[in-house]
Amino acid sequence: MEDGLGAALTWLDYAAVFVFGASGALAAARRKHDIVTFTFFAAVTGVGGGTLRDLLIDAPVFWVGRPEYLIAPVAAAVAVWLFGAGRARLLILTWLDALGLCAYAVVGAAKALAFGVPPGAAVVMGVLTATFGGVLRDVLAEEPSVLLKREIYVTAALVGAGVFVILNVLGVPQLAAALAGFGAGFAIRAGAIVFRWSLPGFPGRAAPDED
Amino acid sequence: MEDGLGAALTWLDYAAVFVFGASGALAAARRKHDIVTFTFFAAVTGVGGGTLRDLLIDAPVFWVGRPEYLIAPVAAAVAVWLFGAGRARLLILTWLDALGLCAYAVVGAAKALAFGVPPGAAVVMGVLTATFGGVLRDVLAEEPSVLLKREIYVTAALVGAGVFVILNVLGVPQLAAALAGFGAGFAIRAGAIVFRWSLPGFPGRAAPDED
Amino acid sequence: MEDGLGAALTWLDYAAVFVFGASGALAAARRKHDIVTFTFFAAVTGVGGGTLRDLLIDAPVFWVGRPEYLIAPVAAAVAVWLFGAGRARLLILTWLDALGLCAYAVVGAAKALAFGVPPGAAVVMGVLTATFGGVLRDVLAEEPSVLLKREIYVTAALVGAGVFVILNVLGVPQLAAALAGFGAGFAIRAGAIVFRWSLPGFPGRAAPDED
Repeated sequence: MEDGLGAALTWLDYAAVFVFGASGALAAARRKHDIVTFTFFAAVTGVGGGTLRDLLIDAPVFWVGRPEYLIAPVAAAVAVWLFGAGRARLLILTWLDALGLCAYAVVGAAKALAFGVPPGAAVVMGVLTATFGGVLRDVLAEEPSVLLKREIYVTAALVGAGVFVILNVLGVPQLAAALAGFGAGFAIRAGAIVFRWSLPGFPGRAAPDED
Repeated sequence: MEDGLGAALTWLDYAAVFVFGASGALAAARRKHDIVTFTFFAAVTGVGGGTLRDLLIDAPVFWVGRPEYLIAPVAAAVAVWLFGAGRARLLILTWLDALGLCAYAVVGAAKALAFGVPPGAAVVMGVLTATFGGVLRDVLAEEPSVLLKREIYVTAALVGAGVFVILNVLGVPQLAAALAGFGAGFAIRAGAIVFRWSLPGFPGRAAPDED
Repeated sequence: MEDGLGAALTWLDYAAVFVFGASGALAAARRKHDIVTFTFFAAVTGVGGGTLRDLLIDAPVFWVGRPEYLIAPVAAAVAVWLFGAGRARLLILTWLDALGLCAYAVVGAAKALAFGVPPGAAVVMGVLTATFGGVLRDVLAEEPSVLLKREIYVTAALVGAGVFVILNVLGVPQLAAALAGFGAGFAIRAGAIVFRWSLPGFPGRAAPDED
């Protein structure tokens, strides 16, 4: 994909690694860690989702052959270190994270399709690419997992990847499908941020685990 | 494996994904999550063990090329959502989980042998296939890990995979070896559920970690 | 690598699997687990880092084709079970862990270079090989993660792998580069153990996560 769309996707990719990387560095900042730990968390969060996708679809892991991808998390770690992690910056980051989430959902699904993965599994790849870095960040930082928040998050990735893949299967040109998927996912995530949208929770009663 | 045994294994596989998936959905039910999170946990728990096995033995990840496997966790999530997670259903699920555990231990080891993995490592693959989905579920749901329970669980998978692989090496026909492995593992797990069997714990004293 | 250096590396590898395995068994000992759980934790900790490396660089996972590697964690589990986990042994283990950390950092980077991974990513592979087993151990044992300790740990692996890779790129013979990398990493880790060296933590304020 070295054409215009490909180049745009590459830059989107760097941007998403940077944004997710910054959210990883923020997790390190909350515990006053050193710069190496900042970078470790930025890297795991930034490239974790795409790494899992590449392992699952048996593609070469994207950053291993092209370590210039690792510049983005290093830059994210340094940026958070220098410019801090105050409340205003958190708000900016929430929105950048929403952009990264929806970009990754589309990019992840597109790469899976390009590797011959069937549409159903390609949607899953989009969701994993978008969310798994944050899942790893929360597990490793021992923070409440993004999966366990009530706010719509995984759903936005699912809608973004789903719309893209469906339009793709229907023959819509890839750029239009990508924009539509990105837009649909982002609209939902934006609504969740602004209006605290959430899906209805399980209405039944669940017996506790006894052990 | 498109013969009779192969078809039986495929159906066992779907059933195990469904059962483990249901246990994942239950973890989501305990925290009143929405249907997307239900499905996410059902999928991770249902296919997590087999996914790790396939990555380790360098096989194509089983559900990526055949996304119909993903129907099972979706069905499990919907079933738990509709039929609830009361105490009686938990008991049923404990027993279904025992069936799934022992089925997966044998299926996982069989697939590893079919890919040329040496017997010792094939046993490990059986254990990982059977237990890793539950481990992922507990880590992501922030529940006490199945690994850390006193009750015999991993050991049942180890016995099931071990008996199957040993009989296989000794030249016993595969179906007989599979049934023997499944039976041995299930007998042990059933004993653990009914009689709360456990192996003796470490008798020594362990100094706490100081940091 | 079946020459002298190769054989030495293989033995270093077994030794590192044993040492990290023992630290995994210790985590199980702290909670009075049974021998199967001891072995499970020893195996995950001992081979986890190298397994991730091999998946990422698309090498056959080192212990799958050669299950004799699994003897080392079994031996480590038995050794901790028999000889206990008292305070004096913990101190010995801290030092053995430091040796394993720096050995793995170099071995992991060397294997990555041998598989054609670019230098920047090879350093990352060294760090992951050295640290990921311990990260898995802590996540699965629900202990405070080695990543979140203030003491220098990841940094020692980074220096060890970094020095080795840089000298390698500069054309220094591999054995000399390996010894220099190992020595540099170990000096830093030893300083951290003896003098409780740490890097400066993030000086800014971090707003808490609100959800």
